[in-house]
Amino acid sequence: MNVGVLGTGVVGRTIGGALARAGYRVMMGSRTAGNAQAEAWAASAGENASRGTFAEAAAFGEILFNCTAGTASLSALAQAGAENLAGKLLVDVANPLDFSRGMPPTLTVCNDDSLGEQIQRAYPDTMVVKALNTLNCDVMVNPRLVEGPHQLFICGDDHGAKEVVVRLLEHAFGWDPRDVMDLGDISAARGTEMVLPLWLRVMGAMRTPHFNFRIAPPAVTALAPEQQPIRTVPR
Amino acid sequence: MNVGVLGTGVVGRTIGGALARAGYRVMMGSRTAGNAQAEAWAASAGENASRGTFAEAAAFGEILFNCTAGTASLSALAQAGAENLAGKLLVDVANPLDFSRGMPPTLTVCNDDSLGEQIQRAYPDTMVVKALNTLNCDVMVNPRLVEGPHQLFICGDDHGAKEVVVRLLEHAFGWDPRDVMDLGDISAARGTEMVLPLWLRVMGAMRTPHFNFRIAPPAVTALAPEQQPIRTVPR
Repeated sequence: MNVGVLGTGVVGRTIGGALARAGYRVMMGSRTAGNAQAEAWAASAGENASRGTFAEAAAFGEILFNCTAGTASLSALAQAGAENLAGKLLVDVANPLDFSRGMPPTLTVCNDDSLGEQIQRAYPDTMVVKALNTLNCDVMVNPRLVEGPHQLFICGDDHGAKEVVVRLLEHAFGWDPRDVMDLGDISAARGTEMVLPLWLRVMGAMRTPHFNFRIAPPAVTALAPEQQPIRTVPR
Repeated sequence: MNVGVLGTGVVGRTIGGALARAGYRVMMGSRTAGNAQAEAWAASAGENASRGTFAEAAAFGEILFNCTAGTASLSALAQAGAENLAGKLLVDVANPLDFSRGMPPTLTVCNDDSLGEQIQRAYPDTMVVKALNTLNCDVMVNPRLVEGPHQLFICGDDHGAKEVVVRLLEHAFGWDPRDVMDLGDISAARGTEMVLPLWLRVMGAMRTPHFNFRIAPPAVTALAPEQQPIRTVPR
């Protein structure tokens, strides 16, 4: 299967490298054809790796990964071209983090919208699946770096596209499908993008980016009547 | 120890009830002295339970819990009165959720500010500790409802105040201090409040509010050189 990886940063290089090692043919796309990071990556990532423009990588891939900086994603996708994105499955790994005012970053879109939704609205003929954006890239491609089980959150409007992504993540990176939590339609990207401020604080407390969220389930416990659950949301 | 619980909703009643059962003297505060929910709670929660206005509860408590709706917290605290809040430890359990446009709710403040910070700025002589707001209230007062271990996030500017809260949560609710994760100063409330959209989606996927986040730590694994961690934030 051919995969287009958009973005030449550490996330794109890590995902692209892992996909190439797993046997996928990977073209890394960048803004300009002569991008030095993409060239170096393609030269070192084996015979399955190649590089091109955003448009060339998008045209090449049956599945695309958006690994561009969140603040640059929409312009990168515009360069990729709607005609090269139509009918494709796009895994959106980006977070709309704005570091321009220093640390901690803020989100350029949140609360009543998300980058995942913006991309899906801009490219309605593309099946956008938001996934992997709550993880450090080393953990994205090697979930065993973190003590298991732990959760991979996924969302998107197209159920079949999500199933394809789960199979890819299992085959290429070793994710256990039972650890993938489907949060519903693409608007759930608000949730997975808005967790970044907490993620960054937890990284500070853990002193490593190699952690992940596990959803601890209800305990199987005999409850006294006065302890019976009251279903409510926190406030 | 005397505790003032501000708010008569399910969160305030659950926390107040658990504190009273654990031997704390608890006054539940409400906007008006004759609040029916507060009266019913005080009548059923034993000899340690009483009720009053926000101001009376704030004056009564050595430690205060803000369990009001996030959209009403600042006006409730104004009614409590700065003179009754000064020098006190205030555990802020509230989330600034706006349900006025239906589900899912949005946050009235987020990204570059938080309710916890707003409260701390408004009452600089109060030690605000943000805690428990990432949990359903049944789990707040009974962490064993969820399969352990799982994390309680806490933040605030005053280190001693956080230590007092951790001891209270251990003694009153049974939290293991090792499961409490200190995320730093009160600005970390941005992170714990902004996790609510994800929390609500996870509740939908889990079909229960009785779950919690566990931070899964790095695995102790022998790594090949090409798998050595690259420290970076996700994007």
